[in-house]
Amino acid sequence: MIVTATNQDGGQIQDITARAGVFNEEEVQCVSEIWNDYETLGAEQGGYYFIVEREGDKVLGWASYGTRDLTDGVYDLFWIAVDPRARRSGIGRKLLDAVENIVRESGGRMLVAETSGAPLYESTRKFYFGTGYNLEATIKDFYKDGDDLAIFIKRL
Amino acid sequence: MIVTATNQDGGQIQDITARAGVFNEEEVQCVSEIWNDYETLGAEQGGYYFIVEREGDKVLGWASYGTRDLTDGVYDLFWIAVDPRARRSGIGRKLLDAVENIVRESGGRMLVAETSGAPLYESTRKFYFGTGYNLEATIKDFYKDGDDLAIFIKRL
Repeated sequence: MIVTATNQDGGQIQDITARAGVFNEEEVQCVSEIWNDYETLGAEQGGYYFIVEREGDKVLGWASYGTRDLTDGVYDLFWIAVDPRARRSGIGRKLLDAVENIVRESGGRMLVAETSGAPLYESTRKFYFGTGYNLEATIKDFYKDGDDLAIFIKRL
Repeated sequence: MIVTATNQDGGQIQDITARAGVFNEEEVQCVSEIWNDYETLGAEQGGYYFIVEREGDKVLGWASYGTRDLTDGVYDLFWIAVDPRARRSGIGRKLLDAVENIVRESGGRMLVAETSGAPLYESTRKFYFGTGYNLEATIKDFYKDGDDLAIFIKRL
């Protein structure tokens, strides 16, 4: 069941991120920092909303999103991660659907998912292509030399 | 002379922003919030660096920039504004050069300037085109319907 993340989920969210296989140390650290903002400031002030797919006490995946400042109805999908042990069960899709529904209900009209153009992220890009996102912009060598920024957009 | 902004500059920075003629109320409010972060948390923790062109006690223009998380050497130019009474004197260019020099000296390799594709921002876009930036991406109807996001990039 997809629910708003609560304090008890922080450890599992960070554990899934570390085991996901696509996030480097700096990215894992970044999740720890935005989770800390979520816990201490709350979603609205911190700018990061968290939802989780929870089965009993177990978190199987999580996503984080937020509004883009100075836009009318643009939301960022910051992170989406599924426990490797629970892959291919549609949890990523379910989390993405949930974020889209929340954004729609909040009057949002656009979701932005930024990801990497590197080979490691090919399945991520396929995931967005397969869920109705368009690759609307690419910035070459953005993350680092040879690692482009790919900006996926879904208009809701 | 271009210097790091100090607490005394906050009022003039906000005054210039309000009088610049291109920023709406929400944007002016946003400057007030990031300035508050700068004053209370400092540039590194708050994420917003501020420089000003100062003549005596008078601030004639200001710029704000910061590092883009999770990238190797990418910096955002968040804001640049010149007092309307001091326009056409090269202050915008001077501020931009200063940001670029700071970024270069910090090992940065790319500056990102996001702006609007709306008619009101035509002179801003011309300014970036004239200072060596390339329009590398556009997201249609980003800020609002009919108001695109224009992503200008300079590789340093």
